[in-house]
Amino acid sequence: MDDLTHTDFLGGRVRAWQPARGYRAGVDAVMLAAAVDAQQGQEVLELGCGVGVASLCLLARVPGLRATGLEIQADYADLARRNAAEAGAKFEVVTGDLAAMPAGLRDRQFDHVFANPPYFLRDASVSAQDPGRDIALGGDTPLEAWIEAAAKRVKPRGFVTFIQRVERLPELLCTMQARLGSLQLMPILPRQGRESQLFLIRGRKGGRAAFRLHAGILMHEGETHQQDGESYTSEINSVLREGAALPFPG
Amino acid sequence: MDDLTHTDFLGGRVRAWQPARGYRAGVDAVMLAAAVDAQQGQEVLELGCGVGVASLCLLARVPGLRATGLEIQADYADLARRNAAEAGAKFEVVTGDLAAMPAGLRDRQFDHVFANPPYFLRDASVSAQDPGRDIALGGDTPLEAWIEAAAKRVKPRGFVTFIQRVERLPELLCTMQARLGSLQLMPILPRQGRESQLFLIRGRKGGRAAFRLHAGILMHEGETHQQDGESYTSEINSVLREGAALPFPG
Repeated sequence: MDDLTHTDFLGGRVRAWQPARGYRAGVDAVMLAAAVDAQQGQEVLELGCGVGVASLCLLARVPGLRATGLEIQADYADLARRNAAEAGAKFEVVTGDLAAMPAGLRDRQFDHVFANPPYFLRDASVSAQDPGRDIALGGDTPLEAWIEAAAKRVKPRGFVTFIQRVERLPELLCTMQARLGSLQLMPILPRQGRESQLFLIRGRKGGRAAFRLHAGILMHEGETHQQDGESYTSEINSVLREGAALPFPG
Repeated sequence: MDDLTHTDFLGGRVRAWQPARGYRAGVDAVMLAAAVDAQQGQEVLELGCGVGVASLCLLARVPGLRATGLEIQADYADLARRNAAEAGAKFEVVTGDLAAMPAGLRDRQFDHVFANPPYFLRDASVSAQDPGRDIALGGDTPLEAWIEAAAKRVKPRGFVTFIQRVERLPELLCTMQARLGSLQLMPILPRQGRESQLFLIRGRKGGRAAFRLHAGILMHEGETHQQDGESYTSEINSVLREGAALPFPG
């Protein structure tokens, strides 16, 4: 993995080495970190942390937080450790498979567990013809294993937060519903009135509150794409440039 | 059932006798009818039709449509027949239980099946303490039986459309996902930025398109409740007063 780029997040408050090709952390990782309502002194776990961008963003926002990341690909885990060391962040990275939880994590529980499971942009015709293949293309580990690992590693009353593409909402929601309570769904709308491509979802271990469907987070101003530069809403600008939180209501 | 009221829907294009107390059809039934994209010459089935408001609204909008309603409560079914007769509508009402489909319906299939299963406004503390009791309070027939009946009675490539309260979204979505494809979720937002209390959901028998999450239908103008009169959006006014359609996109 020689070909690396050094990318700025949160207006330069977080910098991360990542491969120039392959999966690259972006807006999704920053949105995920913003949605995790962690508090000073807590411990959090990121499943499939990649080069660590979501955890590093969360650590940059919440002082006194301790984060652990689990990553199956050794070269990404190494980069996550390097990024943590260069930032001086309290971020421990474990190389391992969430479907076969490493011994060092199997007896630990966390206040928050969060993840951005891998997904791929797919051809619509492939999607229509072979839903099973679609799911396989979304990574080697089924979403159910991600949720099962998260539900086991979160403390009682703790929170599990995922960001994912809308195509996989039924799979993720139904799996979470079976293992966690107090589910809240937060659509991420590209623009006013446009259907969602992404969503955030949060569940609470042992939670018993009714399901909530929020109006959603609006990413861009205006009703059509403006070619001349970015047009993030002021709320999203604060999240992406200044590391503002974007917690679930209530 | 002596104490009846005669209620206008669609600006008087539909009138229906219904009990002055107990379950009363309202905005939900009209929204459901608006979302069913039925065409001239088709046959549709409403499960749990009550006094028939949703079917009568749909018949008023789509000329040449034939509708059948199934209702377990004989007095509501009788009122539905009376309402159909007074309107001169092609609306056949069958008294029976969807969980034990009457013989006359068991060998029939429809282009569209739709329903507004009963639900009750519940005390939040009851909801938090006993989710099982909540589900029971939502009617004697579990939502799974509604979806199973709908999936059996709809033609291949036909559509199943439900309206329901958000608390029961996970239950309804997961059940639909197991039996139907091409699911689309349409939140119904009380106002801009406010979380949904109601939603429409549609599935297609044999459909294989990716799940879609729409931005939602906005009911009221403004960000706060105006005490001086109604403030429906112009789109909703057209639906409620003029019987306009409100079809799912695509």
